[in-house]
Amino acid sequence: MSATTRTTTHELFNVRTPPDALSELLRALPAAVAAEEVATADALDRVLAEDVRSPGELPTFRRSTMDGYAVRAGDTFGATEGLPAYLEIVDEVFMGRAPTRSLVVGQCARIATGGMLPEGADAVLMVEQTQQVGATTIEALRAVAPGENVVKVGEDVRVGDAVLPRGHTLRAQDLGGLVALGVTSVRVARRLRVGVVSGGDELVDPHQEPGAGQIRDINSYTLGALIRRDGHTPCLLGIFPDSFDVLFAAAQRALAEDDVVILSAGSSVSTRDMTAQVIGQLGQPGVLVHGVSLKPGKPTILGLCAGRPVFGLPGNPVSCMVTYDLFVAPTLAHLSGASAIPRRTVSARLSRNVPSATGREDYIQVRLEQRPDGGLDAVPVFGKSNLIFTLIRSDGMLKVPLDAGGLSAGAMVEVVLF
Amino acid sequence: MSATTRTTTHELFNVRTPPDALSELLRALPAAVAAEEVATADALDRVLAEDVRSPGELPTFRRSTMDGYAVRAGDTFGATEGLPAYLEIVDEVFMGRAPTRSLVVGQCARIATGGMLPEGADAVLMVEQTQQVGATTIEALRAVAPGENVVKVGEDVRVGDAVLPRGHTLRAQDLGGLVALGVTSVRVARRLRVGVVSGGDELVDPHQEPGAGQIRDINSYTLGALIRRDGHTPCLLGIFPDSFDVLFAAAQRALAEDDVVILSAGSSVSTRDMTAQVIGQLGQPGVLVHGVSLKPGKPTILGLCAGRPVFGLPGNPVSCMVTYDLFVAPTLAHLSGASAIPRRTVSARLSRNVPSATGREDYIQVRLEQRPDGGLDAVPVFGKSNLIFTLIRSDGMLKVPLDAGGLSAGAMVEVVLF
Repeated sequence: MSATTRTTTHELFNVRTPPDALSELLRALPAAVAAEEVATADALDRVLAEDVRSPGELPTFRRSTMDGYAVRAGDTFGATEGLPAYLEIVDEVFMGRAPTRSLVVGQCARIATGGMLPEGADAVLMVEQTQQVGATTIEALRAVAPGENVVKVGEDVRVGDAVLPRGHTLRAQDLGGLVALGVTSVRVARRLRVGVVSGGDELVDPHQEPGAGQIRDINSYTLGALIRRDGHTPCLLGIFPDSFDVLFAAAQRALAEDDVVILSAGSSVSTRDMTAQVIGQLGQPGVLVHGVSLKPGKPTILGLCAGRPVFGLPGNPVSCMVTYDLFVAPTLAHLSGASAIPRRTVSARLSRNVPSATGREDYIQVRLEQRPDGGLDAVPVFGKSNLIFTLIRSDGMLKVPLDAGGLSAGAMVEVVLF
Repeated sequence: MSATTRTTTHELFNVRTPPDALSELLRALPAAVAAEEVATADALDRVLAEDVRSPGELPTFRRSTMDGYAVRAGDTFGATEGLPAYLEIVDEVFMGRAPTRSLVVGQCARIATGGMLPEGADAVLMVEQTQQVGATTIEALRAVAPGENVVKVGEDVRVGDAVLPRGHTLRAQDLGGLVALGVTSVRVARRLRVGVVSGGDELVDPHQEPGAGQIRDINSYTLGALIRRDGHTPCLLGIFPDSFDVLFAAAQRALAEDDVVILSAGSSVSTRDMTAQVIGQLGQPGVLVHGVSLKPGKPTILGLCAGRPVFGLPGNPVSCMVTYDLFVAPTLAHLSGASAIPRRTVSARLSRNVPSATGREDYIQVRLEQRPDGGLDAVPVFGKSNLIFTLIRSDGMLKVPLDAGGLSAGAMVEVVLF
């Protein structure tokens, strides 16, 4: 048997495309989202667990959008600078209070931006379009139409309007809109607990000085940060040796305590095989996908054990980050009922040709450089993929699609920032 | 005097362009950044307060990047499938341990990805390029060059290398790289306390039912969320009536306790004037900029009182968000020593013509719509600008530059997400 036709364990993977692999896992996941009630003021970036309908209307009263005079529009019809209309000032509207009197023909009331229109008034004349000609008289130098410079009751929102949908990730202005309606607490998806089990005989805690052949654990820390970035709670179980029994026990504990489990294994075939065995015996149905047409990240394992997603991510720090973003992040969003994952991409112009194999998604690390014309260049950062500092010198990742044989210099590409 | 030439208080503003206004404030600010030490594991999104140089080298030993055999490259020279070289397996390198023996001519040692190369070896032959022909003998079916499939000591980082610069905002992989070097704590810029004083006779707390002419306070909540989004600590002082003495006392308290003060005032000329008076008397030099060529957001006030930035932001919720992003966010970044503000923009194609006045920066609310070709369309969301729910129906803001008389349908534009 020749070297090129020899099969090793990892070549027996039933390799899947990244979108196929992810949808196989997501299809198998239960749809229920656990929710909790939180104060709206604390709900930034949380995912709404229910549709919010407006309990009231906004504005609740007719508001002026200008500083000027509340008027009866009809009194100003035909008014010009040459032939102004004369109006009597009978009142001043104070902010935060109802006007004390209604207007009849020929009358007006001073009003500021945000003030409540008096009865009888139906428009606001801007102060710049008036001339005061006595203690209680103004000239209207222009005509205003009914409704001009006024926001009507319910013009912004009406009672029962669908305000924000279930699955929406709350932004600053959403919190503002909710409190404007008096919605001071909301039901949102509970933050998920994500257990991280780091496996590898060579790993030591970062506080320790590594001995010969040892390295400090990186992936627990990058994964912890990514999980937190995505609004969830990392639960780092620690570092475990490459022993089936020890890893299995740690994974079992994580599965019992957490909503999602990540096994960050080594990069050798034997540790990858051990991870697959652990996931296979952790619960039904076990391993769903073993191997993805992806570089870096081919030996990724997606599993489902007793209703919970379990991931086997490659030990290489770059592969670990790429596969987290491609598989774990969308799974967490799915479990939270999120209708979309926040965009973290920018457009840039590729600075040089990038080769790739068809039938495989390639992720290329790039540095972004500002061009004098204001655009961005994406400059590939090459380096051995298991070096953490090539990641640090990069601003993002460029995806070379499955079907592309590569990308040409000058092509506009989307770069996922990280 | 005709209406068009009449001057009112707000037309006397010495109106500045947004970049001019910001740089006037930033130039006047003290450069010192207050720093604190935090655990690297907790330092996501924090700004480094000092350069980090590598205290060690990575890797600290010669590592294999493949599963296979550590060899002396010279022993494989000329080897092919037809004429393999024969090597004796004398050892197996265990992960996390130093090899027990060195290799001499004709010898090799089993090694996994990440394993430490034995002395005497200078390359790794992939397992796929070998054939085991006995208990302790392999055929090398290919030649390897010295250094092939090996990461050298210090190849990733050397002692003293500049790893991450002061001012860098820490990402997940940066935390990974730092812990890889044993840097388990870092000095970062202290989170800033940002005091928010909400002024307006018409405002009530969101938990209260507004009476006639009253509205719930929105801006305290949107500002609080934006400040938190930017990694700082909002300190909401509450709602205050439109009284100089009361507002002045609240602003004084905020200035004493917080690093930065925001006065979120009403939208009428009189409340804007009162805000300017408060900032003017709060400390030297007081108001730096009163009025910016910007829509929405023209009546923005930038001040500096006793060495601390004080902002007077317009009460309109949309103006408030735009001016926070344009002036407050970069000021917080500047005070933190951040070398860059995180990008939050996407490219999109404008769906229709957008008019604008030259000499003014316009910010247009847009909704993003995915096109079948994968690109995004930016669809302007029109609506009276003081309606909070037009903000909620938008995905971002489109900037129409100072010099542009507008933008044409089909133009590629950058949309700032919010």
